[in-house]
Formats: sequence, structure tokens, C-alpha cells
Amino acid sequence: MRTPSYIDNFESWMRSFHFSIPVKVRFCETDAFGHLNNTVSFIYFEEARIDFFKKLGFMEKWTEDKGEGMIVSADLQCDFLSQIYFDERLSVHVKPDKIGTSSVDLHYLVTNEDGKACLIGRGTMVQVHKKTGKSLPWNEEMRSILVKQQHLGTH
Amino acid sequence: MRTPSYIDNFESWMRSFHFSIPVKVRFCETDAFGHLNNTVSFIYFEEARIDFFKKLGFMEKWTEDKGEGMIVSADLQCDFLSQIYFDERLSVHVKPDKIGTSSVDLHYLVTNEDGKACLIGRGTMVQVHKKTGKSLPWNEEMRSILVKQQHLGTH
Amino acid sequence: MRTPSYIDNFESWMRSFHFSIPVKVRFCETDAFGHLNNTVSFIYFEEARIDFFKKLGFMEKWTEDKGEGMIVSADLQCDFLSQIYFDERLSVHVKPDKIGTSSVDLHYLVTNEDGKACLIGRGTMVQVHKKTGKSLPWNEEMRSILVKQQHLGTH
Amino acid sequence: MRTPSYIDNFESWMRSFHFSIPVKVRFCETDAFGHLNNTVSFIYFEEARIDFFKKLGFMEKWTEDKGEGMIVSADLQCDFLSQIYFDERLSVHVKPDKIGTSSVDLHYLVTNEDGKACLIGRGTMVQVHKKTGKSLPWNEEMRSILVKQQHLGTH
Repeated sequence: MRTPSYIDNFESWMRSFHFSIPVKVRFCETDAFGHLNNTVSFIYFEEARIDFFKKLGFMEKWTEDKGEGMIVSADLQCDFLSQIYFDERLSVHVKPDKIGTSSVDLHYLVTNEDGKACLIGRGTMVQVHKKTGKSLPWNEEMRSILVKQQHLGTH
Repeated sequence: MRTPSYIDNFESWMRSFHFSIPVKVRFCETDAFGHLNNTVSFIYFEEARIDFFKKLGFMEKWTEDKGEGMIVSADLQCDFLSQIYFDERLSVHVKPDKIGTSSVDLHYLVTNEDGKACLIGRGTMVQVHKKTGKSLPWNEEMRSILVKQQHLGTH
Repeated sequence: MRTPSYIDNFESWMRSFHFSIPVKVRFCETDAFGHLNNTVSFIYFEEARIDFFKKLGFMEKWTEDKGEGMIVSADLQCDFLSQIYFDERLSVHVKPDKIGTSSVDLHYLVTNEDGKACLIGRGTMVQVHKKTGKSLPWNEEMRSILVKQQHLGTH
Repeated sequence: MRTPSYIDNFESWMRSFHFSIPVKVRFCETDAFGHLNNTVSFIYFEEARIDFFKKLGFMEKWTEDKGEGMIVSADLQCDFLSQIYFDERLSVHVKPDKIGTSSVDLHYLVTNEDGKACLIGRGTMVQVHKKTGKSLPWNEEMRSILVKQQHLGTH
């Protein structure tokens, strides 16, 4: 495997995650080739990302009626390292990489029960105004929460 | 095949549909058993049902901001008559059966390119108040539209 | 709610389940009406059903290369009792009801964190020959395992 | 919008596609934010990609029992340019970009009814041996078919 351009050193990158969720592969997520359909990776990324944002206290801001912001994906990508099969128990890791004015780059790592990387990925999430759809800068509190998470991964 | 209890005469029932949509089976809708995953039938039913409601002019009432009603499923069922495979071209038929005060029983028939029935089903849809979730009776206009559709199928 | 025809007494029926799996509602499983899309119920049923069959030791028979049998859905139905929202923690219960020569009727109950029933359902699964697609009777071992599970629910 | 690194000139890139499929956004593909859930983009990409491979005569080689090759995704990425809503009619375009020994880079463009780009993306597909999972070089016939498609887009 070539290391994707968003990863400097694969070994240290793998150790830099501090949040993950467990996922079990559903039968309906396989396809006629007998393995996990590749569109499902992004469902796993989304589930991990939302749980991560919930842990940070961001989801409740975005889903409450009076909140002015919501979150959208600017881009998403996934590298498929090895086949995944029905009933595998996976860990879906997520961490913030670069933090922008109103955006954050998230990195994803999906490992199997042997701790082997099966899927890796990244994507930029942008906070936008619910009504205008324009980008909405992080406030001080949100930014410092993201920075703190980012630092967790650098030790 | 035993005829399900919601069908009197299978031959005349099959001829009683006057609305259908085309559906092509996606690869990601198959599973590791090599055929269409059975949970997908209900996605096809939903697509046909919504297009049917759109044709009747109901969807715009339910999705406009000032509309007071929306539609929910009370129940859904599907009988699986024959295997369906990747890339098959299906026709998903839908028609109203019994019409209640605020509900309608819809019947579904999915045929393949040979005109053979692969999936059949039914389900009761209920119009409810968006805010209270309580049932909302059809108004005269909606009822007469449904009755007209129902009569189409009896000739 | 009217009790569906497949349930005699709702209270005792709810107490008759002895197997369940936990499910958390994914964001991508909601729809623009703001709640769980109704097609997803059948994904939850499938996940519970397969885990149940795995616990009984049936799944490995059906997925091994030399196994002659596999399992298909003859029919499936779901009654929608109350709305389900993003991030809810559900328990999806499954149990065998009637046992046929080569089939078994499974009952489903989905409860939320308050123990309230949100979704209930049933469906007949049939063991078939992998090659011919014809029904394949349970052998003595499989039948006795199913009967044992059935009896668990009657005490 | 910043032009992604895989596109030189956006205007000429948009004109370089010669194959597309129509897709209608299903209600169950929306989420509680009211728009198309972002995981669905990759389902649309897959449907277009498979239809494209079918047109080239590749799918039948990969799905026939005696065929030695199959196709897997090495990576996939999507840039989200504008929101997509229920019932929109989209065109999903696909074309080959770089052609490797056993791989091909595919580019994707999803336009709405106004011809506006909503989603763009790319991903490398690799032909592999069914049994070993190792890469399987294109034969002369397949390569010349791919090259021909590639040239279509440069005029």
C-alpha cells in the first residue's frame, strides 16, 4: 500500500486516535461479491463522526431548534486496504486533523479484531448557518474543544 | 404459493393495478447470498408509494411548511415470491385498497421483465397531524381522489 | 392500537422473548420527516434474526461451502407503534413462534430505553436447498434446538 | 469552491464526460437534516460505474463463474458542491481518467436538472484475481476499450 497523501507516517498516525466506536458488519451491508459493499464505509465514518461530535457537545447545538448552525460535509474520501466480511467486529476511529475558521478536517481509521487497518479516510466538515448555508466560524468554546482533541493525538 | 389473505383472486388482483414505476436493482442492494437483500423490497414499495401520492397531488400538501398533515406507515408487509438479482428491471405497482377515515390501505406488486410477480405486499398509511401525531381525516377532495383511483382497479 | 392478528395477548407476548440485540439509530437511517425511515425496521429485524440463528449454530451451516441449505424469507411484516428518532438505543427481540417442516415463524419486538414497544413484527423463514431453491426440512438436531427456544417463551 | 486537485480546468472537465445514468433521489436517501444523506453519493457513483463497466462489456467477465477477475475499489472520494433534495432528477456521469496496468481511475460528476454540478469525485478501481485477491493486468482487449473511452473525453 502507498500511504495516502493525508498521512505522514502510518505507524504514528495509527497511534494518534483517541476516540472510536464499535461496529458490527450487518448482512445487508454485504453485496453479491461476498464482502462489505464499499459504499458502507461512509456510513461507518458518519456514525463515528456524529458520536465524536456528540461527545464534544456539538451535536446538541446543531440539532436544537434555536441553534443557528449545522454541519455539512465538504468532502469525504476512503482508502480500502483490505476486504471486510459479514459479522466482523470493527473499531471506527475518528480524530480532528487541521482546524479551519469554520471547518475541521477529520481523519478516520477502521480496524478489525486483529487491530489491522482495513479502511482509512478523511474529510472536511464545515459548520454552516442553517438558514443561509454560509460558513459559520467556530466560537471560542468550540475551537478550544477541537484544539484540545487535536493535541491528544500528538502525544 | 398460498395466496396471502389480503388477495381474493390473484389473477384479477394482478390486473387491477394502474400505476407503476420502473426500478433497476442496484449492486449494493444485493447481499452475500447473491440476490436482492429482502430489506430492499420496502425501499421499492416506498418509492412507488411516494410517486403515487405525488401523482395524486398529496405529497406537496404534506411537505409544504404550512401544511398541517403528514403521512406515516401503520404497518407494512411483503411476501417474497421469487428471487431477484442484480440489474433486473422491475415494475413496482401500487394501488389503494380499503379507504378509511384518515387512512388508506395500499397494495403493492413487483413484477420482473417477464411480467412475473416477484414481490407482493400491502400496508396501511395514515394521515396524521404534523404537530400532535394524531390521525387527520381526509378532506373531501383527497377522499374523492383516492376513491377514483380505487375504482380504476375494479374494472 | 389494535393488537395484530399474530399476537394473542400483548402483555404476555412481550414477556415471551428471551433473545435480543442492542441497536443504536444511525443518522443516515432517519429521513426528511425527522424520524427513523420505516424501511429500516426490516434491517433491524434482519440483524436480530441472523444473530439469533448464529446463537443457535444455524448460520455456520448455511454459510459454509459444503452446506446444502440456506435460509430465505417467505414473508415479513411490521407494525409501527411509535416514532423512533436519531440516536435512540433500541433492543431488538426475536423468538420462534410456529415451527414447520422446513420453516419457522419468527416474531420481532423492538423496544426503546423505556421498555416501550415501538415496532413489532413477524415473518416466516424457510430453509431451502442452495442449488434447487426447494424447501429443505429441518434435521432432528435443528428442530430440537428450535423447539427448545420456542418453549423458553412459554414459561 | 476550490477546484479539487484531480481536476485541471473545471469547465473543460465538465464537458469531457460521455456516459451518464439518470438517478432520482429517494425519500429514504434523505436524512433528518432534510437533504440527501452524504453517504448516498457513493451509491450513485457505484451505480454509474457498474453501468459504465457493463456498457464496456466488463461486468459479464467479472460476474461469470469461470471468469478469473473481479473489480475492487482502491479508493473513493467525493466533493459536495451543493445540497441535493428529495425527488431531484440527477445525472451521474462517469469517465476513465488515468489507466494503469491493472487499474483505472474513474472520475464522477453529478449534475442536477439545471446542469449544475452538485457532486464530483474520483476513485481508483483495480482488477484483481477472484481467488488470490492480487492485481490482474488488463488484457489487450480491455485496455484498448478503456483507452478508447478515455480519448472520447479529450475532444
